Amino acid sequence: MLKIQQGSIRTPAFMPVGTLGTVKAMSPDELADMGADIILCNTYHLYLRPGHEIIRDIGGLHSFINWKGPILTDSGGFQVYSLSALRRISEEGVEFRSHIDGSLHFIGPEKAMEIQCALGSDIAMTFDECTPYPADYDYAVKSLELTTRWARMCKEYLVARKNEITEAQTPPPNLFGIIQGGMDKDLRKRSLGDLIDIGFDGYAAGGLSVGEPKEEMYDIISYIGPQMPEDKPRYLMGVGDLRDVLVAVENGFDMFDCVMPTRNARNGTLFTSKGRISIKRTEFKADPEPLDPNCGCYTCRNYSKAYLRHLFMAKEILSMRLNTMHNLYFYLDFFNKMRQAISEGRFAAFKKEWDIILEHGD
Amino acid sequence: MLKIQQGSIRTPAFMPVGTLGTVKAMSPDELADMGADIILCNTYHLYLRPGHEIIRDIGGLHSFINWKGPILTDSGGFQVYSLSALRRISEEGVEFRSHIDGSLHFIGPEKAMEIQCALGSDIAMTFDECTPYPADYDYAVKSLELTTRWARMCKEYLVARKNEITEAQTPPPNLFGIIQGGMDKDLRKRSLGDLIDIGFDGYAAGGLSVGEPKEEMYDIISYIGPQMPEDKPRYLMGVGDLRDVLVAVENGFDMFDCVMPTRNARNGTLFTSKGRISIKRTEFKADPEPLDPNCGCYTCRNYSKAYLRHLFMAKEILSMRLNTMHNLYFYLDFFNKMRQAISEGRFAAFKKEWDIILEHGD
Repeated sequence: MLKIQQGSIRTPAFMPVGTLGTVKAMSPDELADMGADIILCNTYHLYLRPGHEIIRDIGGLHSFINWKGPILTDSGGFQVYSLSALRRISEEGVEFRSHIDGSLHFIGPEKAMEIQCALGSDIAMTFDECTPYPADYDYAVKSLELTTRWARMCKEYLVARKNEITEAQTPPPNLFGIIQGGMDKDLRKRSLGDLIDIGFDGYAAGGLSVGEPKEEMYDIISYIGPQMPEDKPRYLMGVGDLRDVLVAVENGFDMFDCVMPTRNARNGTLFTSKGRISIKRTEFKADPEPLDPNCGCYTCRNYSKAYLRHLFMAKEILSMRLNTMHNLYFYLDFFNKMRQAISEGRFAAFKKEWDIILEHGD
Repeated sequence: MLKIQQGSIRTPAFMPVGTLGTVKAMSPDELADMGADIILCNTYHLYLRPGHEIIRDIGGLHSFINWKGPILTDSGGFQVYSLSALRRISEEGVEFRSHIDGSLHFIGPEKAMEIQCALGSDIAMTFDECTPYPADYDYAVKSLELTTRWARMCKEYLVARKNEITEAQTPPPNLFGIIQGGMDKDLRKRSLGDLIDIGFDGYAAGGLSVGEPKEEMYDIISYIGPQMPEDKPRYLMGVGDLRDVLVAVENGFDMFDCVMPTRNARNGTLFTSKGRISIKRTEFKADPEPLDPNCGCYTCRNYSKAYLRHLFMAKEILSMRLNTMHNLYFYLDFFNKMRQAISEGRFAAFKKEWDIILEHGD
């Protein structure tokens, strides 16, 4: 359990992704009802649209999007790396072109903090350079050193801000440091050590799930996870395949985010207690059964596979709603059951059981 | 108040349109919560996708789409006229090509009844030929005579079916006859008279809002409305501009359907107590106020115009949800207030007040 000003977060926690200030197809009430404790929003996207100042002036992101629980914002480092057409990295930060209109922008550590403070984030992330895969050793070293210097600047920015603000103002967010270092264990260890020296409210592993083979990712997860401070949240960024989550939880990670349940839902790929299915398949055309008879979500309690297939084929908006509701419920329920298993000392059995289920698919 | 097996319908009633078995972007619970007593679904669309037999085998449309209130289904006559690429009209019905895949189909009066019975409709419409605008006199006569013959066949089909079914089976639907006759008053009168001779559970004016000038439409509405039987529902098909609704209610009509509130919502045109607004306008970029401070809908209670604009510009699904919710609430609330005004004997004042409001727009 992680307690922060805005509320409690049961861990291991899954954070639905609300890129532009909305978890696609969902209302905030629906997210709360299905047990989401915290959501993630994207600094890069909200900075470009509608702009962090607009959100600040309206009263912050919680009020803007009508979400009452905690919000974690990423720093924009990953999106600058993955989305923008051109990026020029300097000691001060990154100059990049908007993926929307090509306009020129600059985000560095201070700017990333300024934006996240304006949004009123509960958990902010340090601005990092996401080391690409593959990267040679020299690049990975330089990249990690830059990430560390930026992390320090982020913390200094928030400390200075904390001393400035009056009681009436929003307190600055918690700050998590991001471990980089590519696929090199020594560099990962060095990155973590440097961050611990600076001191953060939580630690996150970044630069994973960026194209590397699963074995390499598991190698880093199982190496660095157990070394991360046990008394702080340990967040594995952007990794959300539940098989990977199981490996990560085994190694101490307790916070996750991923677009997989929401994106898959919109593409018609649905998770069930018997494996994944694609709802567009002809065999479901007249199928009166719910998607998953073992599922307690709104979709499974009220609709047949035939109706879900019909909505999907007709490209109806309700298709995206019902599918997303089901997949997110499935994820959050999985995390619920996993927490239960951990608290009852049977995580190993839980992992074994689910490893088999999660292999099933179309 | 119209009472039918499936529930009560407060009149004048507005029926949200759920073409393919879903009112676009809404869940059935949301529709019920905002006070929709009845929805309309399209026979033509559901016949093509997913097919009426599939819906029948799953337990009927109510169960398929999880809507507990009454459902009115149109007969497919209008869609065959407006959507299909090719149509060949004969005494038996209409041969047409699907607007989806070009496949060849046939719907006549019996088939239209068979489909609507399979769907489990509460109110079925007779299969009509929608007289195009403009139409010469001879065409309009022939078309109306065909529509009358088909209307009789529809009734005979249902009467025969009523005698066949056992107690365990669904009772056949109520049946409304459709008045045609183009823009010719005598033909409209003749059409109505013929239908009354056959005898229906309700009467509907079809073939309006098909391209004619408003004055011509008003002319027909104010001519035929007062002649329709007062003790039966009087349904004005496909007319939903609220200014037109006011004219129609003044002339006795008490059932309406229209895609305007839902379609406009998805295009960002929103109704307010001060007139229509387009949410995409730059002036709303940082506007912290709700869309309509006088509105009690979920959208207005929880969100700013700035957020609605942001969602619309970013093409988020939640934009379509929140906009649709607002527009439908606005419509249903308008009908609520109109019923109140009627019951308090102040409809004329209500109409005067709203005629001014409804002229306002971007």
